[in-house]
Amino acid sequence: MIKPTLPKGTRDFSPEVVRKRQYIFKVIRDVFEAHGFQPLETPAMENLSTLTGKYGEEGDKLMFRILDNGDILEKARGAKDSAELAQLICEKALRYDLTIPFARYVVMHQHELAFPFKRYQIQPVWRADRPQKGRYREFYQCDADVVGSESLVNEAEFLSIYDSVFSKLGLEGYSLRINHRKILAGLAEVLGRPESLTDMTVAMDKLDKVGLEGVKAELSERGFPASAIAIIEEFLAINAEGSDAKLNKLEALLDKSPTARQGIGELTEVLNIGYAPFRSVPVIDPSLARGLNYYTGIIIEAKAPDTVRIGSIGGGGRYDDLTGLFGSQALTGVGISFGVDRLYDVLSELNLFPATIQQPGGVLFLQTDADSRGFIFPLLHQLRQQGIAAEIYPDQVKLDKQMKYANKRNIPFVVIAGQSERSEACVSVKNMVTGSQEKIAVSALADYFKSAL
Amino acid sequence: MIKPTLPKGTRDFSPEVVRKRQYIFKVIRDVFEAHGFQPLETPAMENLSTLTGKYGEEGDKLMFRILDNGDILEKARGAKDSAELAQLICEKALRYDLTIPFARYVVMHQHELAFPFKRYQIQPVWRADRPQKGRYREFYQCDADVVGSESLVNEAEFLSIYDSVFSKLGLEGYSLRINHRKILAGLAEVLGRPESLTDMTVAMDKLDKVGLEGVKAELSERGFPASAIAIIEEFLAINAEGSDAKLNKLEALLDKSPTARQGIGELTEVLNIGYAPFRSVPVIDPSLARGLNYYTGIIIEAKAPDTVRIGSIGGGGRYDDLTGLFGSQALTGVGISFGVDRLYDVLSELNLFPATIQQPGGVLFLQTDADSRGFIFPLLHQLRQQGIAAEIYPDQVKLDKQMKYANKRNIPFVVIAGQSERSEACVSVKNMVTGSQEKIAVSALADYFKSAL
Repeated sequence: MIKPTLPKGTRDFSPEVVRKRQYIFKVIRDVFEAHGFQPLETPAMENLSTLTGKYGEEGDKLMFRILDNGDILEKARGAKDSAELAQLICEKALRYDLTIPFARYVVMHQHELAFPFKRYQIQPVWRADRPQKGRYREFYQCDADVVGSESLVNEAEFLSIYDSVFSKLGLEGYSLRINHRKILAGLAEVLGRPESLTDMTVAMDKLDKVGLEGVKAELSERGFPASAIAIIEEFLAINAEGSDAKLNKLEALLDKSPTARQGIGELTEVLNIGYAPFRSVPVIDPSLARGLNYYTGIIIEAKAPDTVRIGSIGGGGRYDDLTGLFGSQALTGVGISFGVDRLYDVLSELNLFPATIQQPGGVLFLQTDADSRGFIFPLLHQLRQQGIAAEIYPDQVKLDKQMKYANKRNIPFVVIAGQSERSEACVSVKNMVTGSQEKIAVSALADYFKSAL
Repeated sequence: MIKPTLPKGTRDFSPEVVRKRQYIFKVIRDVFEAHGFQPLETPAMENLSTLTGKYGEEGDKLMFRILDNGDILEKARGAKDSAELAQLICEKALRYDLTIPFARYVVMHQHELAFPFKRYQIQPVWRADRPQKGRYREFYQCDADVVGSESLVNEAEFLSIYDSVFSKLGLEGYSLRINHRKILAGLAEVLGRPESLTDMTVAMDKLDKVGLEGVKAELSERGFPASAIAIIEEFLAINAEGSDAKLNKLEALLDKSPTARQGIGELTEVLNIGYAPFRSVPVIDPSLARGLNYYTGIIIEAKAPDTVRIGSIGGGGRYDDLTGLFGSQALTGVGISFGVDRLYDVLSELNLFPATIQQPGGVLFLQTDADSRGFIFPLLHQLRQQGIAAEIYPDQVKLDKQMKYANKRNIPFVVIAGQSERSEACVSVKNMVTGSQEKIAVSALADYFKSAL
């Protein structure tokens, strides 16, 4: 028989890794909750009619479709190409992101929900991307969104969420960048090329990767004249000390565009909303464009500290019409997402996972003889009641082998309850780190571990 | 545009329901951890070569297959029936249970793992079953298993896990039933029909549903002679005061079968292993068979209190050869599973969800005027640092509307920081349950909510 394997681009998470991931999820969840967001969960599968056309041509290609059960041979007849065949024999696909299922949920429940509806969602999504370092076919998204409120207070709150999460994770040197889609649209207007907004932002988005000369070359290839490229260069160079200076320069450059002025006004409002306690004050980044074209307002990106060269660890923004996709009344939405896999890599590289998140403490009772069990079980029960993880080595094998097991599992204490210990109503406790051993009365055992662990 | 819908048999979980489910998961997870089990997570998709043939013909039919990406039209050519077509165009399927992925993981990592390997896993699985009340196409399983230990200490620990989880959930009147596959095999031997073990257990398993006469009728239909049915009736009637009496009666009836004697010996050992602190002492149930045929040793079933008529809320047992399925060295396994959807129904019906699991406390600051924001944001930050969920109503609308929102969200306190309050460095706090309102100094606010929430 062939040794089993995993599907390409998927991963098992070993106990140690699960604990680290759960630590990240818990920090994010606690901050979402502290900001008044509520949890939502949607199914892994959605009807294709819900998903198709929402992610562009590329998205439709990368979706994992689920084969219908029953007579598919009959349905498959007459298909002229693979896309048509897929359509004939698949009604459902795996969730591709968390935003569209959220929009679907809001539309289905709009008459029961309290608006503004603030929800968070932490679930896996699936994409048939070519697997590569750091890119998987199954990965978690951590999203928070507000739907049904135009207030920029929401944007300020999302900046606060990023700042709180990264602070709580012990990160230093991260940055929060913001920009406004309308500033970019205004720039395209000022250039006299409003229809080239996407071409322009796609090129600008690569500034970090290819540098200014690379961006200019791409703009030229995409048909921007030298005069336009000169203005874009001036725009990208806006980099003064503080936000106020940047806003002033943007105003001067884009004064002719009412669209841009609206964007600049909103950025000004968010930055001056009175949100004092930022550990890392949000900065305006005129080059920030974010790939997804559905953003229409402020856009946000969180970047890892430069030292780790990991780049974006989160992003989001406002999209004017979330629910209209389903033919419902248009509701404005604004939201952010955390890149959990990248955050994991950042924390690993900077050694920021607390040691305590691995199995909290833990005690292994060795099994010296069958008679010891009746003595040990009540002690196990007592320790567990106090929140101490306690177990008994199940098999009666050489103590040496049982000790090795404790070492391999990183269990810090083993307990021996041999006949002589039992006759004195005590146990021998061995510290597996220091190697020291002492006798502890059974009546004092729970207190002993409560202070030792 | 058509109103969006959910795929058949799947569910959205609203915030309130997510919180209740997370409460159940947390209780189970904490008990697993206290017993020394470690978390594992495996991907939603597995290769079909890993899954096929592991769940019987029925399982192969009910699996959700994932359509390959790329040129499927070419691959599909020449398929003679739907099953062959599915095989040609699908390499992967969704996880059908948690046991086979666990076995796959153990085989892939057998040289790194510390045996006995004790893992727990809480993840969804997918089955194309016909949806009906209480049966879904996507549902969570909560499993704990030990692989690589023959000791019956493990069985005792699993009984302890059930007992602890149900106690912590506040359940009363649940029962833990155990039996041994070898006792059933021994009964079939004594009847001279060892080959009819499955026929016999399938019929016996329906005792709760169809009663004794129903079981006897089915046995007769399945070709059991009257003499055999009389012995089975005697077997099912074994129902003495305590376990010892039951074991004695089983011994007397099945004395001729060495297989049965082994099973009775193991049951005796587990019940006398010294595990004193059961809230609900495990009872022997000779009719307990459990459907899955891979069990070979002790089998366990947890039943909900009779008052709720929900039946089994968990089950498990020992299977001699878990890893051999993948051509690896045979390792014995033993494990249990919690039925989370049924547990949810039990707790709902008995009103056992603690009120505190809904959004813990929560404070909504109303927005009286734009100037109030700079006053409110630092207070939000301060409360959140103390673990208090605090938010600001994002839009500046009538206070009435903001209050209604707090009510709809069940937020217990609203805070008003109007101009007059701000000038006195205090806020007005309104208790939304009692309707009472009082002024609190800003410096005392965190302490106020820490005691009020």
